[in-house]
Amino acid sequence: MTPGTQHSDGQPLRSDAERNRGRIIAAARTVFGRDGLGASMASVAREAGVGIATIFRHFRGKEELVAAVFADRMDAYVTAVNDALDVPDPWEGFTGFVEAICAMQAADRGFADVLTMTFPGAKTLEERRAESFKGFLALIARAKDSGRLREDFTNQDLVIVLIANAGVVNFAGDAAPDAWRRLVALLIQSFQAPARGPLPDPPEDAALYEAMLRASPAGLTPPAQDT
Amino acid sequence: MTPGTQHSDGQPLRSDAERNRGRIIAAARTVFGRDGLGASMASVAREAGVGIATIFRHFRGKEELVAAVFADRMDAYVTAVNDALDVPDPWEGFTGFVEAICAMQAADRGFADVLTMTFPGAKTLEERRAESFKGFLALIARAKDSGRLREDFTNQDLVIVLIANAGVVNFAGDAAPDAWRRLVALLIQSFQAPARGPLPDPPEDAALYEAMLRASPAGLTPPAQDT
Repeated sequence: MTPGTQHSDGQPLRSDAERNRGRIIAAARTVFGRDGLGASMASVAREAGVGIATIFRHFRGKEELVAAVFADRMDAYVTAVNDALDVPDPWEGFTGFVEAICAMQAADRGFADVLTMTFPGAKTLEERRAESFKGFLALIARAKDSGRLREDFTNQDLVIVLIANAGVVNFAGDAAPDAWRRLVALLIQSFQAPARGPLPDPPEDAALYEAMLRASPAGLTPPAQDT
Repeated sequence: MTPGTQHSDGQPLRSDAERNRGRIIAAARTVFGRDGLGASMASVAREAGVGIATIFRHFRGKEELVAAVFADRMDAYVTAVNDALDVPDPWEGFTGFVEAICAMQAADRGFADVLTMTFPGAKTLEERRAESFKGFLALIARAKDSGRLREDFTNQDLVIVLIANAGVVNFAGDAAPDAWRRLVALLIQSFQAPARGPLPDPPEDAALYEAMLRASPAGLTPPAQDT
């Protein structure tokens, strides 16, 4: 930034490139929040009022754009798990975290998708996910030690909760905006010890990872053109 | 059918129109089962090896095609609830029905969608749904009377189960084909009396109906053409 170059309102002048980048991120946040990550780069360009070539000058593809848009959400995700670990009661910490991230999904449809997808090209985003996951494993261990969380709960169950919740959030939309709360309350009650019965085995981590990969938006692949 | 007009293998001759109708239904079953009801009429035409105009000579739109494709599934849905009412133990009847319809969703992605959408133009299909719903209300009443189902369970909870399960089925696909079993087992345990705590209110029927309407495929509306 060159010192002294300011707008008349005192704001520092930003280059066209910086302005465009900010505008694209804001537009993508709106479009992904409304339509999910399946939304096209062209929709983002329209919302931002820029050409699609401008988007690709700033972001190599949808993974990079997603990472930029959800950087603050992923930070909040990590903060949520760390806050939960600070809650003195392990069961309250555990259930509070599950409720908090499901609420984050409900508040932002794009973020609901982010939590059930994986973006191998978006390093910072995946580092945040890994950090949050590590904290969640600690939350599970603590809640089991306290005797309040059923012994057969596994980290895969969190993925199942996130997928089921994303399904309800996406389906219910603003027609039934609180439907997800009922689902999550039921699931949390089912996690409580003592277990009311055995469960089928959870899916393997590798299988869930594969599903998350497949669910991820193809990014640059245009949707089918037929009717 | 004109008597005596038979193929050499003894099968009665069918007209081209009848053959095409059968071929379209079979193709639609494959395509909807694989891609969900969001699949385009053009995909169905390609799979059937007919022109799209031929499809529209047989079915006025996607609602009619969906109704024809899933007529037998909807019959099985009604049979499932009636069978469940015949199970002597009310809780077993109730839980067996929930498991059975979730299994039907897992076996057919298109049917998973049918159960979470509504097709006001498809009278027979909606009559089957209404019949099954009436039976489900009886299943609920019986299971509550037996003291095994929590008192605050409502018919809206079944819709929530179907949506959550459709979400998991669609997400996990053949990467984690049994993930839904774990979700459903957890939910069934959460339904068991005595309740482990209060729940947020369920969504209103009208709100869920609105969401089901919105989720329904636009049918003839072409998908967005942009990338």
